[in-house]
Amino acid sequence: MAGEDSPPACQYFNLTYPLPFVAHVEINRPQKLNAFTEAVWRELPRLFSYLSTSPSTRAIILSGAGPKAFTTGLDVQSFSEHSILNPSSQSPQFDPARTAQQMRRHVDEFQNAITSIEKCEKPVIAVLHGWCLGLGIDISVCADVRICAKDTRFAVKEVDIGLAADIGTLSRLPKVVGNGSWIKDVCLSARQFGAEEAESVGFVSWVGSHGGKDEVIQEALRWAELVVSKSPVAVQGTKEILNWSWNRSVEDGLKYTSVWNSAALQTNDVMEATKAGMQKRKPIFAKL
Amino acid sequence: MAGEDSPPACQYFNLTYPLPFVAHVEINRPQKLNAFTEAVWRELPRLFSYLSTSPSTRAIILSGAGPKAFTTGLDVQSFSEHSILNPSSQSPQFDPARTAQQMRRHVDEFQNAITSIEKCEKPVIAVLHGWCLGLGIDISVCADVRICAKDTRFAVKEVDIGLAADIGTLSRLPKVVGNGSWIKDVCLSARQFGAEEAESVGFVSWVGSHGGKDEVIQEALRWAELVVSKSPVAVQGTKEILNWSWNRSVEDGLKYTSVWNSAALQTNDVMEATKAGMQKRKPIFAKL
Amino acid sequence: MAGEDSPPACQYFNLTYPLPFVAHVEINRPQKLNAFTEAVWRELPRLFSYLSTSPSTRAIILSGAGPKAFTTGLDVQSFSEHSILNPSSQSPQFDPARTAQQMRRHVDEFQNAITSIEKCEKPVIAVLHGWCLGLGIDISVCADVRICAKDTRFAVKEVDIGLAADIGTLSRLPKVVGNGSWIKDVCLSARQFGAEEAESVGFVSWVGSHGGKDEVIQEALRWAELVVSKSPVAVQGTKEILNWSWNRSVEDGLKYTSVWNSAALQTNDVMEATKAGMQKRKPIFAKL
Amino acid sequence: MAGEDSPPACQYFNLTYPLPFVAHVEINRPQKLNAFTEAVWRELPRLFSYLSTSPSTRAIILSGAGPKAFTTGLDVQSFSEHSILNPSSQSPQFDPARTAQQMRRHVDEFQNAITSIEKCEKPVIAVLHGWCLGLGIDISVCADVRICAKDTRFAVKEVDIGLAADIGTLSRLPKVVGNGSWIKDVCLSARQFGAEEAESVGFVSWVGSHGGKDEVIQEALRWAELVVSKSPVAVQGTKEILNWSWNRSVEDGLKYTSVWNSAALQTNDVMEATKAGMQKRKPIFAKL
Amino acid sequence: MAGEDSPPACQYFNLTYPLPFVAHVEINRPQKLNAFTEAVWRELPRLFSYLSTSPSTRAIILSGAGPKAFTTGLDVQSFSEHSILNPSSQSPQFDPARTAQQMRRHVDEFQNAITSIEKCEKPVIAVLHGWCLGLGIDISVCADVRICAKDTRFAVKEVDIGLAADIGTLSRLPKVVGNGSWIKDVCLSARQFGAEEAESVGFVSWVGSHGGKDEVIQEALRWAELVVSKSPVAVQGTKEILNWSWNRSVEDGLKYTSVWNSAALQTNDVMEATKAGMQKRKPIFAKL
Amino acid sequence: MAGEDSPPACQYFNLTYPLPFVAHVEINRPQKLNAFTEAVWRELPRLFSYLSTSPSTRAIILSGAGPKAFTTGLDVQSFSEHSILNPSSQSPQFDPARTAQQMRRHVDEFQNAITSIEKCEKPVIAVLHGWCLGLGIDISVCADVRICAKDTRFAVKEVDIGLAADIGTLSRLPKVVGNGSWIKDVCLSARQFGAEEAESVGFVSWVGSHGGKDEVIQEALRWAELVVSKSPVAVQGTKEILNWSWNRSVEDGLKYTSVWNSAALQTNDVMEATKAGMQKRKPIFAKL
Repeated sequence: MAGEDSPPACQYFNLTYPLPFVAHVEINRPQKLNAFTEAVWRELPRLFSYLSTSPSTRAIILSGAGPKAFTTGLDVQSFSEHSILNPSSQSPQFDPARTAQQMRRHVDEFQNAITSIEKCEKPVIAVLHGWCLGLGIDISVCADVRICAKDTRFAVKEVDIGLAADIGTLSRLPKVVGNGSWIKDVCLSARQFGAEEAESVGFVSWVGSHGGKDEVIQEALRWAELVVSKSPVAVQGTKEILNWSWNRSVEDGLKYTSVWNSAALQTNDVMEATKAGMQKRKPIFAKL
Repeated sequence: MAGEDSPPACQYFNLTYPLPFVAHVEINRPQKLNAFTEAVWRELPRLFSYLSTSPSTRAIILSGAGPKAFTTGLDVQSFSEHSILNPSSQSPQFDPARTAQQMRRHVDEFQNAITSIEKCEKPVIAVLHGWCLGLGIDISVCADVRICAKDTRFAVKEVDIGLAADIGTLSRLPKVVGNGSWIKDVCLSARQFGAEEAESVGFVSWVGSHGGKDEVIQEALRWAELVVSKSPVAVQGTKEILNWSWNRSVEDGLKYTSVWNSAALQTNDVMEATKAGMQKRKPIFAKL
Repeated sequence: MAGEDSPPACQYFNLTYPLPFVAHVEINRPQKLNAFTEAVWRELPRLFSYLSTSPSTRAIILSGAGPKAFTTGLDVQSFSEHSILNPSSQSPQFDPARTAQQMRRHVDEFQNAITSIEKCEKPVIAVLHGWCLGLGIDISVCADVRICAKDTRFAVKEVDIGLAADIGTLSRLPKVVGNGSWIKDVCLSARQFGAEEAESVGFVSWVGSHGGKDEVIQEALRWAELVVSKSPVAVQGTKEILNWSWNRSVEDGLKYTSVWNSAALQTNDVMEATKAGMQKRKPIFAKL
Repeated sequence: MAGEDSPPACQYFNLTYPLPFVAHVEINRPQKLNAFTEAVWRELPRLFSYLSTSPSTRAIILSGAGPKAFTTGLDVQSFSEHSILNPSSQSPQFDPARTAQQMRRHVDEFQNAITSIEKCEKPVIAVLHGWCLGLGIDISVCADVRICAKDTRFAVKEVDIGLAADIGTLSRLPKVVGNGSWIKDVCLSARQFGAEEAESVGFVSWVGSHGGKDEVIQEALRWAELVVSKSPVAVQGTKEILNWSWNRSVEDGLKYTSVWNSAALQTNDVMEATKAGMQKRKPIFAKL
Repeated sequence: MAGEDSPPACQYFNLTYPLPFVAHVEINRPQKLNAFTEAVWRELPRLFSYLSTSPSTRAIILSGAGPKAFTTGLDVQSFSEHSILNPSSQSPQFDPARTAQQMRRHVDEFQNAITSIEKCEKPVIAVLHGWCLGLGIDISVCADVRICAKDTRFAVKEVDIGLAADIGTLSRLPKVVGNGSWIKDVCLSARQFGAEEAESVGFVSWVGSHGGKDEVIQEALRWAELVVSKSPVAVQGTKEILNWSWNRSVEDGLKYTSVWNSAALQTNDVMEATKAGMQKRKPIFAKL
Repeated sequence: MAGEDSPPACQYFNLTYPLPFVAHVEINRPQKLNAFTEAVWRELPRLFSYLSTSPSTRAIILSGAGPKAFTTGLDVQSFSEHSILNPSSQSPQFDPARTAQQMRRHVDEFQNAITSIEKCEKPVIAVLHGWCLGLGIDISVCADVRICAKDTRFAVKEVDIGLAADIGTLSRLPKVVGNGSWIKDVCLSARQFGAEEAESVGFVSWVGSHGGKDEVIQEALRWAELVVSKSPVAVQGTKEILNWSWNRSVEDGLKYTSVWNSAALQTNDVMEATKAGMQKRKPIFAKL
């Protein structure tokens, strides 16, 4: 399954390679502000599984098509028509426990689809602009790096439609932002916040200086170009070890690192990187 | 036990409802700078257990009475007279192990009293001003959101009286502030710090622009008013899932979320919130 | 073994006591920019084990000798000659599994050497200046507090030589900095960053205002002087409880605190600190 | 609160002291086969909190009154009348999420009541006989030691009334019995099993040789008499450390043990036990 | 995706329904003693995902076709031809780190395939007979209940072919058998053991009295018939809560139980089970 | 440090090689029933660290010299003279917190010494006979496999001298024996038990049929001979993965296994084992 040659056909995502080894994934439903129906999120795991093992891909840029939004989140119309969320609770057959089972299966599948971004072996940099609401937050906290345009407007929107964010925001936000008071504030109030605030609390690590998306894409390309010039063994190992350690104690992190590196340190890339450094040339690494 | 009608009588806390569904709890021992004796903290869990299940309460503001202090922490005089901390270690019957058992029971009860703020199902916003020392830090890290007046002076004061902070600061501060160097600094040195520093490291998420407590209370009221306008099912679920996930791996957080939401998503509030949004009116949610 | 009188002889580290109870450890290989060979890191655990239980030591300043660097990390020349990293993989006897076993043992020992800084019972403040690369980051995240000169240049350098940082950076950085996007950025790209950026994300908690190392050493001395004036029972308990709680749930942190303090609260230091406070004199604490 | 003199008045439990320091708690609703209504389980935590800190109590025997049953579990009649489990789901106001909140609060309180047996600082030996069904299993897995009469009939009965055992059996049974296949068998099928089977899988550690309860009470008294002759510091520390370690890694268990014992080893009981051993007399230990 | 009507086509597994709601899955490669090639295990997750949500399935019997073996494990011939395990390590391009990456992906997929049995929402009872070697152990520890014929011969065979069991035996065996000395013995020595020994240590919970497979199938049918007569809400909740709690602390188990049951207790099955009990008839439960 | 040629000189332990690759470690203080003074346990970690990486060692037998005891545990006389346990608590300088610090350091070192058996990379089989008391239990639960003579008498003896077992029994016993009721019984009562009982609860996995030690040594030799005939890569990986997984969730166990095996599966031993199997000869494995 690893290393398959052609990407899966996607209706709602564009996949291009603006630079060697740099994949650009674009959420492509701009006329609906890149809102997600079920058909949209079901495409995600196939796409990111492909990229995870594709030897031609060493870094991924994730952005939204069109000038207005990364994504406004769940497609409200599609959502309100969703049968699961409209249980005919007055019918005699209605059983909250059976409905709960359906819900759980549905949420589990939805979560798994988004988690495929986090599980992707290659670094993912999210380029945010315009609206980044609800599911947009769930998605971007799965990326490794988040940068945004000056005009981006964020909100952990879910309480506004009567629910707790369930596709990952509440589990991942406390891992990536070290400001508990701010996290509780924005998750409980659903209030909007802008790029400057997002940067000051560490939700994004870079903000564009003008208004639009283009300069952020350029910054992402610069970053990705730098990353793909490094040993893919080193880069992918770094992502994996960080993701593992994040959730665990220092002791467990150290042990995992030493076991992981017991194989990784045997790579030819160490020799190649060292030699290239001494010879002041760019190293060339085998595919991975 | 859920939904009892009348709050417990408290000697050291005022309870008012400045807005519908918004409870205001005031530590009320201003002549002693709101310092805590054992009698004070023993009232806390009864009060917050009541609020936790009171259907008339959807958000809680916690502040200190008087102009000078949120609280200066443990009442030193009361503390130094406390028999447990004055073991007559030269008596022939003195047994450090038996004394330790007494200490442990005492600290456990004290911790449980303060933890009742964290366990309260409703969001708690702490309004800090003046002195916020020692136990004041233990208490405020149990709140969900922390905001403060410009004149607030903080210190993790405990090492100054010969002990390690034992009522929660050392366990919770690293969860709510993402600056390990600063945490170790202030906990090991007991040095004071002000509102600006507290904001820059993320200990508080908002600081007043003038000196006093009033504008912070106003800000808290604005925030609470916003929060109580949302679905209580969504708000309380968000608090609970965040608290659970904070301490656990992403995987365990995601699973808990999907199980929690399997019941919560069946709420009528989703429909009401969606309808109200389309009808551009304020939604009305049943009590919880 | 506790309380031994004379420190171990070290070739690569200076140990001085600029103030009573304040030890100053200096990495002393300035002509090589304090780069680490295996001989260097093998001295570390003996030194820090000694300091951990030395009653004359209550705080430790860790810095690099010379004007140019805290440390540039692993000594590249020494590293590239290291037989473990040059397996003659084309020999018929070559066995990646056996090589992995050697690697694992080596990395485990290296990790343990650096971890001795974290395990040291006394607070450690790292004074960073000039180059702080690769292993310099692994070392400084083991310290309790990090402060730096204005001219410090940092990089999580490891991917540049084809490997994932394996001596602790990837396990500890997410615990001490609350900005996931930035952590992934610097670890995946190996890009340099300066003192201002280090402070803004919380990697260091203080930056000097001029360029050099001296003012940072002065600041460290002021901090250490303050810390050693406190009860050593309180200070060392605070470090231990923070380190334990950092990795665990709030519940486990609280329980450990109450068990720890059941003995610690019986110290005479509480009485001495309280009395000294009332008598407005400096308290005097017994050795520990 | 520790060490209060008189036990709480209980309607459904007898408390006697058949031997010095040995408390005997009897579930006392024999005409209903000791089935539990809400009024019954609400008495439990007050009783076991008292015993936990009562200096006159060093071991507890827990058994059921009458010849027929330890307990048949939840009182079915009382249970089926319980409003929470009969939501009028066809009413227009019915909201599964709000009902879930009520359920959760109710189950949490019920769990806490039973957990008070596990949290009791003194060893608890459960004497089982006759019927031991449903809640009887939840209760007995909270005890430290389980012994039973030859005629005891057990069942993890809950699936028979349409629910998963929620008061602790499913969380604790895998910790106390090392036979996963058997656990899944009896929990999924609700089938009955007898004393011999209970002993062979390790659910109980002793079975009487005749039919009745009396010989098991005698065995429990022999065991309790032995235990209360030991140092209470040692016995209570052993229970606490075992309960902590059971749920955690070996590393965390070892650390907790060393911190706990740093106070406990200072007890006078070590000297007294050692001296008494050399003098071939019974040691006398101070109260705890 | 839930509740799809027709099972996936399988080449290596038979699926029949010997009783209503009871699925029988048979590993069907008897001429090769049910040994597993990659093609075989790749069918497993599709089959068990289907069964997991199929409303017509409430319990699953898993056995091996033919008289000789449950399975002899990995197909040795297929395995030794597998390119991944035959790295041409003498080629100049050979890179142990890149090979490791391929291995990891392969093992992860293999593990996930087998884990689908554990994740299946319906109880699985494994019927073992004849040879049950290597992968046969990995598979059977994923089942909920294990029973076996008198003639069954077991071995944790992997060390005999130079590797540590990597598809789950080493992670799951310590959870289902409470005899550490025996586990280490059989895993380190790869020695065979029989049915009687398997029963005495708790690896299986029932052994047939004659030699063959048929009586074990009959026992499994009796067990499954009993289980499918119970509320599927109760049965599936019991499996899920046990699986969750097994891996976690009692506290986390209790909390998960109360959240899970907050929805599950609202099922109509409680009423139906209670009524049927009083009316002495078999309850009828809606599909799930 | 790995692979050093000569073992450390030991006063209290004999080291012999009765078979190729099989080390026999004998506790050698028979005139004192192999009781442990501090001088004894301080030799342990050096010995087991040596064996852990010695290429000539693939399995270790651990037994006690003389006919009477594996070990009676701590040397009582030595213990009662130990200054740490005799704090002159009536002296004015006495400080329970400082004494606790000394205790903790001492217990930590003692625990680490015993843990070296568990951490040893090679399998350890403990041969128990005669008295196996107190520390004898702490030591034997660190071994991988435990077998014993028919005349062995065991006791978790510590409460008899006024303390909770602190060198590992309370942390490890619940991991290796799946009978919670029995564990609490023997740990709380300090009662003796014999070989038959030890086998029936799974504390040992084999008991000799006559009275003495010799047949157990013979059985251990047979077992060790079998184990050292296997691939050392496979055997040592199996021990390591089991030890890791024991303490963690199934998910974490599976992941660690796949990372570990990504290097281990590249061993030449797989090919050698497979070839030897087909050629019906004994495989020959390179040293490790």
